[in-house]
Amino acid sequence: MSVCLRVAEQGYGRSMTHHIGAMLEAHAGQIDLDKDALAECIAACFQCAQACTACADACLSEEMVAELRKCIRTDLDCADICGTSGRVLSRHTAYDANLTRAMLTACAQACKACGDECAGHAEMHEHCRICAEACRRCEQACNRLLEQIG
Amino acid sequence: MSVCLRVAEQGYGRSMTHHIGAMLEAHAGQIDLDKDALAECIAACFQCAQACTACADACLSEEMVAELRKCIRTDLDCADICGTSGRVLSRHTAYDANLTRAMLTACAQACKACGDECAGHAEMHEHCRICAEACRRCEQACNRLLEQIG
Amino acid sequence: MSVCLRVAEQGYGRSMTHHIGAMLEAHAGQIDLDKDALAECIAACFQCAQACTACADACLSEEMVAELRKCIRTDLDCADICGTSGRVLSRHTAYDANLTRAMLTACAQACKACGDECAGHAEMHEHCRICAEACRRCEQACNRLLEQIG
Amino acid sequence: MSVCLRVAEQGYGRSMTHHIGAMLEAHAGQIDLDKDALAECIAACFQCAQACTACADACLSEEMVAELRKCIRTDLDCADICGTSGRVLSRHTAYDANLTRAMLTACAQACKACGDECAGHAEMHEHCRICAEACRRCEQACNRLLEQIG
Repeated sequence: MSVCLRVAEQGYGRSMTHHIGAMLEAHAGQIDLDKDALAECIAACFQCAQACTACADACLSEEMVAELRKCIRTDLDCADICGTSGRVLSRHTAYDANLTRAMLTACAQACKACGDECAGHAEMHEHCRICAEACRRCEQACNRLLEQIG
Repeated sequence: MSVCLRVAEQGYGRSMTHHIGAMLEAHAGQIDLDKDALAECIAACFQCAQACTACADACLSEEMVAELRKCIRTDLDCADICGTSGRVLSRHTAYDANLTRAMLTACAQACKACGDECAGHAEMHEHCRICAEACRRCEQACNRLLEQIG
Repeated sequence: MSVCLRVAEQGYGRSMTHHIGAMLEAHAGQIDLDKDALAECIAACFQCAQACTACADACLSEEMVAELRKCIRTDLDCADICGTSGRVLSRHTAYDANLTRAMLTACAQACKACGDECAGHAEMHEHCRICAEACRRCEQACNRLLEQIG
Repeated sequence: MSVCLRVAEQGYGRSMTHHIGAMLEAHAGQIDLDKDALAECIAACFQCAQACTACADACLSEEMVAELRKCIRTDLDCADICGTSGRVLSRHTAYDANLTRAMLTACAQACKACGDECAGHAEMHEHCRICAEACRRCEQACNRLLEQIG
């Protein structure tokens, strides 16, 4: 099998954004937000929640854990907030733009704080580099949705 | 044993606010927020998360579930948001006022939306009445903390 | 107002177990489990989730954080597992005894592990002492429910 | 740009399993479990948590919501349990095989129950078909890890 096909099957076939988009299409209610931006944001929230949980634990195992306190705390907050945002954005029954906006604002804020903190350790710790990337992707996805909601 | 003593031991002795306050006192770091307002808000967040989870399920078991769709959705969002707020507020290492403010704002918003929705069914459904009360208590506790943070 | 009345109003009136019990009474569906044991277990789960979240953060702020790695990790697991158990137990629509049993088993296990770990630091860290107590209460409440389910 | 490259960049490049695997490689501690099976299981847990959250909400918006009560309840439990399992599996500091086993057992059980329930509505509701698939993938991934732990 060609590398491309393997990538297509294992990578794209399992892409979370793709599955989330299919779920949005299957919803009986009306969804006013752009579905691509929405699917991307939900996927970014869940991925960031995982990355931050893993980064907090990886920091905890570092010899220099005492210097990574702020990173761990920010990771834990960001994991919780992204997880909740991903859930709120996955619901479309009785949509409430005000609540969505408030949650996206908190999420973008958490991702900014955690991305900045992790970026500061990215050269020393690969897990912080990966986590910072996940935070940036999620922050951008939240801000894109916020622009749409107005 | 007198009723008063039983209440004192079982009620107050197990009061969540009391335990949370003791945890705040035991923290080695500095906590700038008023600890009573903070403990009250954390307790209100966890109680509201439970009440909303239970109310969503109680609504789901009602014969008129089709008319309670909005209530269920708002309950689920409020449960997630209050749960996350309760966790963020329980952390004091490397405190970030901006993130705390953003999360408290989203939480007060969720509690207001859910409290309003549940209050509309309070006369028909006792679980909505209890849940509306938990939402009001949590909304007020969030707003009180928000005033302090400025 | 007498101290007893104040306790009754502020303590018992706000006791989480009491509110949870009222929610159980308001549920339209049938609940086969003993409601007192159930309310106590739900309250213990939410309280333990809070205590473990707070203890993980308090450990993170200790000077000797490097020696508290295991405690922090166990706290974080226990917080997540107790939070989820508290939610599962708060639902009674289409009750599934097998799932409830599996979740209670995992929760009792998490509380045992975290209670043991925290108890080992209880004399040095007050937050570990309080957390160990919350874990013991929750472990016992889970085991009591497990006996009922059989 | 070729389709293959686009797939590679958007699909594989963003594949959650891939990112999770990179995080596992970056961990300073020892990880005894097979990292591919672990990364697959963590990704399956987070994806299933999202799918179940979305399916519960999609069911809530269906005209026949009253007939989907059991599906909604099972979705909500499965979402919470998968979310927590994904977090527990993302931590490797002070690994506890007993706790991991108990949580994986509960998770496989929840995925089995939810997968069976959703599969029963798969022909009528596309969101249930997608959700059943996510549950099956997660159930299998949990069972594969359980075999390793022994």
